[in-house]
Amino acid sequence: MTPKLARFLDSGTMATPAILVDLDRVAENFATLRAALPDAAIYYAVKANPAVPVLDRLVGLGSRFDAASIEEVRACIASGAAPSAISFGNTVKKRAAIAEAHALGVDMFAFDSDEELDKLAEAAPGAKVYCRLAVSQDGADWPLSRKFGTSGAHARDLLVAANERGLVAHGVSFHVGSQQTGVGAWQTAIGQAAMVFSDLRARGIDLRLLNLGGGFPTRYRDDIPPMSAFGEAIMTAVREAFGNDLPDLLIEPGRAIVGDAGVAVSEVVLACTRREDGDRRWIYLDIGRFGGLAETEGEAIRYRLSAPGVESAAAPAVLAGPTCDGVDVMYRDTPCALPEGLRPGDRVLIHDTGAYVTSYASQGFNGFLPPEEHYL
Amino acid sequence: MTPKLARFLDSGTMATPAILVDLDRVAENFATLRAALPDAAIYYAVKANPAVPVLDRLVGLGSRFDAASIEEVRACIASGAAPSAISFGNTVKKRAAIAEAHALGVDMFAFDSDEELDKLAEAAPGAKVYCRLAVSQDGADWPLSRKFGTSGAHARDLLVAANERGLVAHGVSFHVGSQQTGVGAWQTAIGQAAMVFSDLRARGIDLRLLNLGGGFPTRYRDDIPPMSAFGEAIMTAVREAFGNDLPDLLIEPGRAIVGDAGVAVSEVVLACTRREDGDRRWIYLDIGRFGGLAETEGEAIRYRLSAPGVESAAAPAVLAGPTCDGVDVMYRDTPCALPEGLRPGDRVLIHDTGAYVTSYASQGFNGFLPPEEHYL
Repeated sequence: MTPKLARFLDSGTMATPAILVDLDRVAENFATLRAALPDAAIYYAVKANPAVPVLDRLVGLGSRFDAASIEEVRACIASGAAPSAISFGNTVKKRAAIAEAHALGVDMFAFDSDEELDKLAEAAPGAKVYCRLAVSQDGADWPLSRKFGTSGAHARDLLVAANERGLVAHGVSFHVGSQQTGVGAWQTAIGQAAMVFSDLRARGIDLRLLNLGGGFPTRYRDDIPPMSAFGEAIMTAVREAFGNDLPDLLIEPGRAIVGDAGVAVSEVVLACTRREDGDRRWIYLDIGRFGGLAETEGEAIRYRLSAPGVESAAAPAVLAGPTCDGVDVMYRDTPCALPEGLRPGDRVLIHDTGAYVTSYASQGFNGFLPPEEHYL
Repeated sequence: MTPKLARFLDSGTMATPAILVDLDRVAENFATLRAALPDAAIYYAVKANPAVPVLDRLVGLGSRFDAASIEEVRACIASGAAPSAISFGNTVKKRAAIAEAHALGVDMFAFDSDEELDKLAEAAPGAKVYCRLAVSQDGADWPLSRKFGTSGAHARDLLVAANERGLVAHGVSFHVGSQQTGVGAWQTAIGQAAMVFSDLRARGIDLRLLNLGGGFPTRYRDDIPPMSAFGEAIMTAVREAFGNDLPDLLIEPGRAIVGDAGVAVSEVVLACTRREDGDRRWIYLDIGRFGGLAETEGEAIRYRLSAPGVESAAAPAVLAGPTCDGVDVMYRDTPCALPEGLRPGDRVLIHDTGAYVTSYASQGFNGFLPPEEHYL
């Protein structure tokens, strides 16, 4: 937790659950990424945290934006982003969303299917398009399944067809999976992308863009390599694959920019021993899987926890949310060491919750409202 | 889908995603439950669908209410429910929520731990309390894990302690799991509850309330027994366990009242063949797991689907939501037969989505807003 967030927490009471985000940390993370990959344009993945203060700050820093929906496109423009600085990165878009984005001046779109190409050719004539490859996501804590991406051979056909249909075959993208902690994860994918570049060159089409996607991690419980290590591994792989003719590079970080800038402030609702669960201690917080901690599904993302001011020895617990829903349990197999003296009303902090929390929150499951958000 | 919803759908265009709910079907389902279990008071589980028109209609029908939070208590009272007709059924509550509910006139509270008893004794002196037993949830499509409930022996101790601390030891509850399709599921639990009654009578405490919980199913893809079969099985078990001295009975249906009163209207965003997924067809809708279809997690609830007006042979598909999130896939293993001619812009209906959809919806993941709700 940053000193600014700690001071805000100490300064008084606040309604819980709440999410605090330190915008200076957002700026620091942006600078760290820029230094680690100076040759890559940064397109912030808006979906990680679409709050207006985050977008405003990033616009001021010269960030570009990766939007998942027309609503996110509009939000970026409302914060002052140039439409030409926005990539519409969801490969699955409504035709009306494509048309509106294009009319607003957005000129770069992702796709990975013949059917999406039809929509782009009709609704965004002349736009630059890049095709998403399906690549390995080994090493990612939150992989993206088989929902997106296609084969290299299909990507080649799609990009040729894009040019024939009045679009600009601009490049190739991939995604190595979210919270990717292996610095080598990009290497094979970069090689796959380079083959698409060279095959298209043989057909007289010069691709310009290599979109390296997102996946850059934030630190949760386990240490992660420094961002510079990701940058070096990626640039080494790009030079190996492309030689001296480097493409334009683009990254779509989200978690790495806002993740560790945030902390969730929650209150213990109940701490008890469950006789029918082997006498395990259960701690119920006022935030849970449906209050924003959706990435605890399958215990995939393992947040650090603390209970400042509660002075007693740590003891194991099952951690659950406040709703009557049985799946609203964050950690049952993941060890949760929290003070044995924890009582209702005590504060529990869930660290590094600046990304992929606020926007997941349900609008009111069991009547519980989404966490209040404070941007500092 | 009810005739009223079909007429509304045919009457013109509407923004999607949307949820339509037929309030007359809500009333019919309420009547069916009342007829199936005439000896049980119906406490509608507000969490299933907390919309004002649903609460208003049920107040008019004389329903009582099971609230999971102080926000739901307030909503019931705002719709005209008497505070004495509200049970605060979450066994995990903030002290401030208990105190506010008690001050508003709510007089019945669930609990299942010593620690919750402390809060109730302090914040709701004199209130009636019932203790939740942990029981088997075999046969439920959406079981409630080990998050709630305690042993019979512990329940006895807790209820004795409740009386000693100025509360009224009022009864016992349990929950056989949500979407419980086995009519016999209640039998063993009723026997467990009856043992608590007789043990407490031996200690001079007469319990009054047997809260049979919720779990009553709605029809999704598979047929379910008629509600009368659940009523008969339950009353047979109650008479076997309690003889001539029947307790007050209470049920907490949610899904069985609103589930089949609703339909979700969605639009196909993309239909394509995924080369990297064994050439399977993928259909992406504008509603997904984060737009309200949360109970498709693990493909637990299997909704019926239709695409009215699209005339072509049915073919299998993987069904996914519109976000960039890899877990936003509803059905991959569950067969989804949808017309092979399905194209972007076509409507797909997801049936029987009146319960446990609207309130789960995220406030804006990937920028997508919750479904619009129409109560007819």
